Amino acid sequence: MAEEKRMGKGRLEAFSDGVIAIIITIMVLEIKVQHGETLSALLPLYPVFLSYVLSFVHVGIYWNNHHHMFHAVTHVKGGVLWANMHLLFWLSLVPFTTGFMGENHFAPFPVALYGMNLLLCGVAYFILARQLLRHHGRESELARAIGRDRKGVVSVVLYAIAVAVSFIEPILSMAIYTIVAALWFIPDRRFEDRD
Amino acid sequence: MAEEKRMGKGRLEAFSDGVIAIIITIMVLEIKVQHGETLSALLPLYPVFLSYVLSFVHVGIYWNNHHHMFHAVTHVKGGVLWANMHLLFWLSLVPFTTGFMGENHFAPFPVALYGMNLLLCGVAYFILARQLLRHHGRESELARAIGRDRKGVVSVVLYAIAVAVSFIEPILSMAIYTIVAALWFIPDRRFEDRD
Amino acid sequence: MAEEKRMGKGRLEAFSDGVIAIIITIMVLEIKVQHGETLSALLPLYPVFLSYVLSFVHVGIYWNNHHHMFHAVTHVKGGVLWANMHLLFWLSLVPFTTGFMGENHFAPFPVALYGMNLLLCGVAYFILARQLLRHHGRESELARAIGRDRKGVVSVVLYAIAVAVSFIEPILSMAIYTIVAALWFIPDRRFEDRD
Amino acid sequence: MAEEKRMGKGRLEAFSDGVIAIIITIMVLEIKVQHGETLSALLPLYPVFLSYVLSFVHVGIYWNNHHHMFHAVTHVKGGVLWANMHLLFWLSLVPFTTGFMGENHFAPFPVALYGMNLLLCGVAYFILARQLLRHHGRESELARAIGRDRKGVVSVVLYAIAVAVSFIEPILSMAIYTIVAALWFIPDRRFEDRD
Repeated sequence: MAEEKRMGKGRLEAFSDGVIAIIITIMVLEIKVQHGETLSALLPLYPVFLSYVLSFVHVGIYWNNHHHMFHAVTHVKGGVLWANMHLLFWLSLVPFTTGFMGENHFAPFPVALYGMNLLLCGVAYFILARQLLRHHGRESELARAIGRDRKGVVSVVLYAIAVAVSFIEPILSMAIYTIVAALWFIPDRRFEDRD
Repeated sequence: MAEEKRMGKGRLEAFSDGVIAIIITIMVLEIKVQHGETLSALLPLYPVFLSYVLSFVHVGIYWNNHHHMFHAVTHVKGGVLWANMHLLFWLSLVPFTTGFMGENHFAPFPVALYGMNLLLCGVAYFILARQLLRHHGRESELARAIGRDRKGVVSVVLYAIAVAVSFIEPILSMAIYTIVAALWFIPDRRFEDRD
Repeated sequence: MAEEKRMGKGRLEAFSDGVIAIIITIMVLEIKVQHGETLSALLPLYPVFLSYVLSFVHVGIYWNNHHHMFHAVTHVKGGVLWANMHLLFWLSLVPFTTGFMGENHFAPFPVALYGMNLLLCGVAYFILARQLLRHHGRESELARAIGRDRKGVVSVVLYAIAVAVSFIEPILSMAIYTIVAALWFIPDRRFEDRD
Repeated sequence: MAEEKRMGKGRLEAFSDGVIAIIITIMVLEIKVQHGETLSALLPLYPVFLSYVLSFVHVGIYWNNHHHMFHAVTHVKGGVLWANMHLLFWLSLVPFTTGFMGENHFAPFPVALYGMNLLLCGVAYFILARQLLRHHGRESELARAIGRDRKGVVSVVLYAIAVAVSFIEPILSMAIYTIVAALWFIPDRRFEDRD
């Protein structure tokens, strides 16, 4: 009966996997097939391609973190479903902001918009984590896993700086986005070792 | 042996998750990447973007309700498979009617068509619920969950009003669509508390 | 150990669900958003829309049958993986042949090509069923379920007739495609009652 | 408790299934619907179609191998998640390189790029296999399954040859890509018999 009161997390994970898989894959549709048959026909695509790589890594990080966080989750409530949908909403805009940035060769405003998008993903992830914590105890495995979410906060701060900086020097913003991505590569390992 | 006679709901859920995940994500492809690099290049996209947000929320609501309803389902029969496919059909048209409405800046006919689409989704959901009830007892958990489906009926009525109103004042229809969405945010919580 | 020798069917089902979900959903992308805001702007889309409905139903039937057949399957072997991939290949072409037929207003050759596509899907499904039967006994639940696959054979024959007829009267072919779809709606129920 | 330390492979498989299902299906979007209604309107599409078939088979092989390999996997670690994401990244570019090759009628550079893409998929698969082996013993079922990965090495070497050869005779490269595909059809059966 208690079991019935609490919904499983399986379908939420499956739906999120589906949406994130589609997001990460349709971005490649922005790299439009060229009709020229030489290397020089492809070269103009490099900003679109670089943007794709950066976004692939970022969306990959979100899937990774989502996977880790829900691994420690034991049940979900309605608020969690909507907090998760909210995260998926901002993630779903990444293909657009990625294409907009690549198409305009890293011009200031598109680079800022891209950073805003990532920042809002970060905030949505934060809200989702809080929603989950509300239904799990302080001593839960989840609380221990999320509690030290310093990296999440640092990322959001770095995104905010990158947005501000983009109007002066968009290349610097791109460097910051890359640093945030790099940041997440390393501690994943540490996180798991602790477990 | 009785187990074998009744098909599990797992694959139906997985297939529906896949289709809904794709529907909710490909809508973003309607927001075409612009070649201008300033904010003014993006501004003309605001009707497309608003339409996207509205549809994302509506499709999200359907996934949420589908999730809740099937959570209480114990087995499925052939009729259910087709009733579910019927719901997915109308949902699959949402990206088109959304784009049509956004592209034409909330003109009367596109706004009416969008409402018709949502109305038909609502009717299909109602049929699916009845099909499921036929194979579950009156005292089943499912019957208790669906029995008070006043919100579903109210939504369909509101959609019908919005369609009629759109030819006079489409903005009013948009307000009604937004109200329906808001309606579903709140009672989800109540529904779960009851469980 | 015997368990290890035989692969589960779960991932094959999940992958097939994913591919079929995408096929059934991306077809709607062929219905291009129009810039006119009146009903008359939409009317020229009716052949594309009718084609979409027909294909949605056909692909839905394949998913339904796939679901029923694999429900009775206990294990899969390498040959089955490829027979399944072969079926998915022909199904994956349905969005193209559907769009080609709708775009050209049911002209003879596109209608014939559409029928060829459905015919090859039918043949691929037949091959998949045989592959599965090879690894299940004659007395298996699967054998009993597939054994009376008269409807599958009738469908393929009807498709072949429709292809031939399309060069004389494509409307007749369309009627035949519709009849095949109708054929599958009814016996699903019978099939399940037997179980 | 040891169970908790090790993450299940379920979600990684589900996410990979989703991404690969989308990759294999969106490639068909490159086959653009033609407005001519005769066979001659379709004939110019033959290079795009042939490229699609070749890529469908290659991506199908990767799914197949991924399926077999993970079947023998008992747990995953963070490094595996990223090695898997790395493989998905190169696979996600296949629709682009496929379309680029088909659109340019198998011209030297596009054919070379396609081979480079497949080569990088092969290398990424190799890295994923090594990552998995690091966390499974030498005597594990996985080690026995992967240990004899001669076909993987041969494929990568053949891809490298095909890339080099493409600038002299692209048709020869296409033949090599086809041979690699054929290579994988046969030994799958042998692999399973051993199990």
